[in-house]
Amino acid sequence: MKFKLEHTEAGSKARAGTLETDHGIVETPVFMPVGTLGNVKALTNRDLKEAKAKIILGNTYHLNNRPGMELMKTAGGLHRFMNYHGNILTDSGGFQVFSLASLTKIKDEGVHFQSHLDGVKFFFTPESVIDIQRIIGSDIMMVLDECSHYPVDRKQAARAVERTTHWAKRSIDHFRKTKPLYGHGQTVFAIAQGSVYHDLRKESCRQLSDLDFEGYAIGGVSVGEPPELIPEIAGICAENLPVNKPRYLMGVGTPADILNCISAGVDMFDCVMPTRNARNGTVFTRTGKIILKGAKVKSDFTPIDEKCGCYTCRNYSKAYIRHLFNAGEKLAGQLATIHNIYFYIWLTRESRKAIINGKFEKFRKTIVQHY
Amino acid sequence: MKFKLEHTEAGSKARAGTLETDHGIVETPVFMPVGTLGNVKALTNRDLKEAKAKIILGNTYHLNNRPGMELMKTAGGLHRFMNYHGNILTDSGGFQVFSLASLTKIKDEGVHFQSHLDGVKFFFTPESVIDIQRIIGSDIMMVLDECSHYPVDRKQAARAVERTTHWAKRSIDHFRKTKPLYGHGQTVFAIAQGSVYHDLRKESCRQLSDLDFEGYAIGGVSVGEPPELIPEIAGICAENLPVNKPRYLMGVGTPADILNCISAGVDMFDCVMPTRNARNGTVFTRTGKIILKGAKVKSDFTPIDEKCGCYTCRNYSKAYIRHLFNAGEKLAGQLATIHNIYFYIWLTRESRKAIINGKFEKFRKTIVQHY
Repeated sequence: MKFKLEHTEAGSKARAGTLETDHGIVETPVFMPVGTLGNVKALTNRDLKEAKAKIILGNTYHLNNRPGMELMKTAGGLHRFMNYHGNILTDSGGFQVFSLASLTKIKDEGVHFQSHLDGVKFFFTPESVIDIQRIIGSDIMMVLDECSHYPVDRKQAARAVERTTHWAKRSIDHFRKTKPLYGHGQTVFAIAQGSVYHDLRKESCRQLSDLDFEGYAIGGVSVGEPPELIPEIAGICAENLPVNKPRYLMGVGTPADILNCISAGVDMFDCVMPTRNARNGTVFTRTGKIILKGAKVKSDFTPIDEKCGCYTCRNYSKAYIRHLFNAGEKLAGQLATIHNIYFYIWLTRESRKAIINGKFEKFRKTIVQHY
Repeated sequence: MKFKLEHTEAGSKARAGTLETDHGIVETPVFMPVGTLGNVKALTNRDLKEAKAKIILGNTYHLNNRPGMELMKTAGGLHRFMNYHGNILTDSGGFQVFSLASLTKIKDEGVHFQSHLDGVKFFFTPESVIDIQRIIGSDIMMVLDECSHYPVDRKQAARAVERTTHWAKRSIDHFRKTKPLYGHGQTVFAIAQGSVYHDLRKESCRQLSDLDFEGYAIGGVSVGEPPELIPEIAGICAENLPVNKPRYLMGVGTPADILNCISAGVDMFDCVMPTRNARNGTVFTRTGKIILKGAKVKSDFTPIDEKCGCYTCRNYSKAYIRHLFNAGEKLAGQLATIHNIYFYIWLTRESRKAIINGKFEKFRKTIVQHY
């Protein structure tokens, strides 16, 4: 993977860069749609292409459960399995092991847990998680980390930072000893922890920086802490991570969160919000949220956003989509998802343009005022 | 509406024709995807276009419930509401009133019932159902009929035939007295009843033929009778309906049913089977059904049908779609629906070609053997 920092806006820390892998170029800042189980919920590959998605997520924990690594290997990895040939980043599953699995027992060696689906026992180690991601064949792999919940006391958070660094070291060692399976390159990102403790965040970032990963994620954010802390923590981490490496804020967030964290120096984002909220009838626009099930749009025959270029906005009205939601038709969620993913990617694409033109802070404010 | 009978195969009653309305030309035999509530479940308008759908269904009973006729009128009719500009045929709602609504009370004047959704009371008459379909703006409207269940005794079936004819007369009178609302023409089809009683079917067809409708449907079929009766009843009706008018067999059926009924002289079909079964994981191909959730396709990385031109078959494997089904991902149903609708329409399109080339019976047999 190559990352080139192209521009940093004067007066903020907002950055424009380019990330290149064997599956193509990704311009940053970038929003990455979440494709947990090998599909972005309700979207075809064509929908992703039309949304101009250049990179999507998969999830190690979930894909290891289903379809499992035997099938994944036979399929020739996730790109071929999905027939998606853009970039794929896979979460390590660390977050899911701590939030979703049961009987999770963490040891220095790794983490024991039972699948939330069927109770099957697994043991994830920093090494095994790399091995799984070799089989998935993601362009960007993530290390196994210990993700602290919120609130967490300082001592526990410090121990999680320590273990995360220790595991990151083992991860990169194992990464360097192993090879990609499908003829395209792979890289691995470390994940900074430290909860809301500034000094722990700094320490985590410094320790991980020393290990010389090709990219860094900020984990343990958006786990229940007050929302105003999100850009604060993102900012502290960004300041203490290498300037010439991409920074990925995991699981964040609202359009305002994303813009505020771009301001703080973050390059990459993922979040289930655009897909999940779409299925529940909430869509995002440059002028705020719209509740599509609401009475307000009952007779509104205009698109979700007149200026939006997505398939949904080019073809359907709010009143029609509202009718579909109220009639329980799944097409409603599909159409709303198409819009929301298009919007989130548009938001980061416009941010990039604005950064390059020195107008990002202005752009940020025009959107954030509506959220 | 204009209907032109172009070809009848020697040795069978299979026909090729052309039906033309202000929303375009429909070549028959034709399969019409079911869009009950103003959308074909899980399909966008683009999906419909790619499936080469030239005509889809809407449902008077359901659309009258939701979104209701006030909104439908404000929207400028269903074509504009859906932004679908092909042909639309609407079921009268007769079938739903008898199968779905509660406290249904039938009188000569019309039928009282309560909505299955919220218990709101309605009174449908042959005239009011035409009025509703004027507001929907469907290209082809259906008369209100009395649909007999199966089994039904001869006396009751005869009474239903009598009432259906009486209502058909009132329908066409009202149709002739009223005008389309949106600048495009509309027509209305009558519906033959008579259950499994050959003489009643003949009588129903003859009585309705005298009323000089532009098209005729065969109703009360596929309501629980033995499947082998379906082509038999279709055949008796077809023989007793005008040769120069289109014949529409309502709610039928499997690929084999459709081919067998084309043989019996039917021109138009609709059925929820391709959409409903798709969502449950069953897809249809020229060589039989495939259960996509089954273990048999677990490691099958070929498309549902190598020769199929649908988006799903051009892009995804059975193993991948199976994984999506087993992981509970809605995309699975979307992809299967895209295939099934494409397949059903392909089936009627190929039938037409075969009829014109005098090879329909051969084509029918190559498919029917797999069902």
